[in-house]
Amino acid sequence: MEATLLKSHKTFEGKTQFWEHDSTSTKTKMKFSTFIPTGLVKGCVIWLSGLTCTDENFITKAGAQKYLAEHQLMVICPDTSPRGLQLPGEHEAYDFGSGASFYVDAKTEGYNAHYNMFSYVANELFDLIQSQFQVPKNKISIMGHSMGGHGALVIGLRESQKFQSISAFSPIVNPTKAPWGVKAFTGYLGEDQDNWKQYDATELIRSGARHEGTILIDQGRADEFFIKGQLLTSNFENSCEGSGQKVKVNYRDDYDHSYYFIATFIEGHIKHHASFLT
Amino acid sequence: MEATLLKSHKTFEGKTQFWEHDSTSTKTKMKFSTFIPTGLVKGCVIWLSGLTCTDENFITKAGAQKYLAEHQLMVICPDTSPRGLQLPGEHEAYDFGSGASFYVDAKTEGYNAHYNMFSYVANELFDLIQSQFQVPKNKISIMGHSMGGHGALVIGLRESQKFQSISAFSPIVNPTKAPWGVKAFTGYLGEDQDNWKQYDATELIRSGARHEGTILIDQGRADEFFIKGQLLTSNFENSCEGSGQKVKVNYRDDYDHSYYFIATFIEGHIKHHASFLT
Repeated sequence: MEATLLKSHKTFEGKTQFWEHDSTSTKTKMKFSTFIPTGLVKGCVIWLSGLTCTDENFITKAGAQKYLAEHQLMVICPDTSPRGLQLPGEHEAYDFGSGASFYVDAKTEGYNAHYNMFSYVANELFDLIQSQFQVPKNKISIMGHSMGGHGALVIGLRESQKFQSISAFSPIVNPTKAPWGVKAFTGYLGEDQDNWKQYDATELIRSGARHEGTILIDQGRADEFFIKGQLLTSNFENSCEGSGQKVKVNYRDDYDHSYYFIATFIEGHIKHHASFLT
Repeated sequence: MEATLLKSHKTFEGKTQFWEHDSTSTKTKMKFSTFIPTGLVKGCVIWLSGLTCTDENFITKAGAQKYLAEHQLMVICPDTSPRGLQLPGEHEAYDFGSGASFYVDAKTEGYNAHYNMFSYVANELFDLIQSQFQVPKNKISIMGHSMGGHGALVIGLRESQKFQSISAFSPIVNPTKAPWGVKAFTGYLGEDQDNWKQYDATELIRSGARHEGTILIDQGRADEFFIKGQLLTSNFENSCEGSGQKVKVNYRDDYDHSYYFIATFIEGHIKHHASFLT
């Protein structure tokens, strides 16, 4: 379904734009934002945002446009969940329901009709990047932050042929072992933990999923959610070790979980993806 | 009055911080944000934001920290008005009262007790930059956007010995001739238009105010407020012509009034101030 342009702002000679379309995956309208550089677009990186975010956070706060323009890459930033629904418990907490999809295809009653964000990103958005923005299918990569870092790792590892490269800021790498993940997976996937593992990057590596490229991760050491055990970065490192999956984790002293951290290191992530896409 | 640190985020090796203090000018608490680079701080630029903004907009959206860090400059971004008051009509419109001080010292009943933002910026903040952040008084410059661009031009021209350089994005350069300015000045200064001219950059140039340095302005040609006659950029250019006041106005095709425009060209403004401060 062709998306409708809502707003456009010239930025670094390209365009920062906001869009809306009817999603077949979520059976709702879905919003997303893009930055499209001027001239030839050599590839596209999908950005997945974290808890409570919308399609606006990254495009407004990360300062990525400068580097995307330099490398002639576009970015597409979907919303973090379906909107406009009234499912049981959907709007009661910041870490479940609206703004908190965890990028799974839900199985539980009610949610299973709409919260199909894995399919939305991995298939519907992947196709839309080609059809609406004329990016070849072998020029698409994925990255994200926190819950969106989890989404980027899981989608990139499970659909490793589709995505040329993967990176993440402060990702939730082992959600089946973290309070946020346990709550969300129980709500979206039900009590059977066997259904959870396909949405856990650390478990995916253990069960044989691999991506050809080196996965790039940046993690602040002063990140309160890192300190509280929501992210569990080293579990992913440990599962990769000796597995053949290459991963580079940059631990950053004194940096926290915020977009100020992302803005500081986004240039390196754009360069990482450019090295695979251009 | 020493300000209290509310939040701190490591950013580009320096610190993005949020502060609060008791202002003697406004007789309220006032908030401001800063970015302070690591190492020696060579100077400080005051950023004044536009209508509806707070101390957060610039520091979150402009992407200035990278360039400030490169030039070893700090920035300080005050709020756009006093807060927490209940003056007549203060919270009824986006373009008057809270979030819309226009950086004047008010004369009208009620407002004159608190809306002293000219003095707040030109004196109180100017002193605080020295006392709290140890920046020498001859290493301070001023810039802003829209209503804040007006503030930067007016404060910089009237206190030209205090501020080493002036720049503005999309400034309201002739508010006595623009709907926004007429409304605000009537409300803050009263009907006597003779009191208005000292807060109008174009009129200040006409009456002999000068700044030694070249004033830098960036203006988008697709800016809706430029098109609607709120900004009146050419009036300022005309008043400078032949006056001895040097001004460089960069008109930018297709750029609008947003922070995407500011983010695109902020590097040039930081370089401009660095050339005077470092």
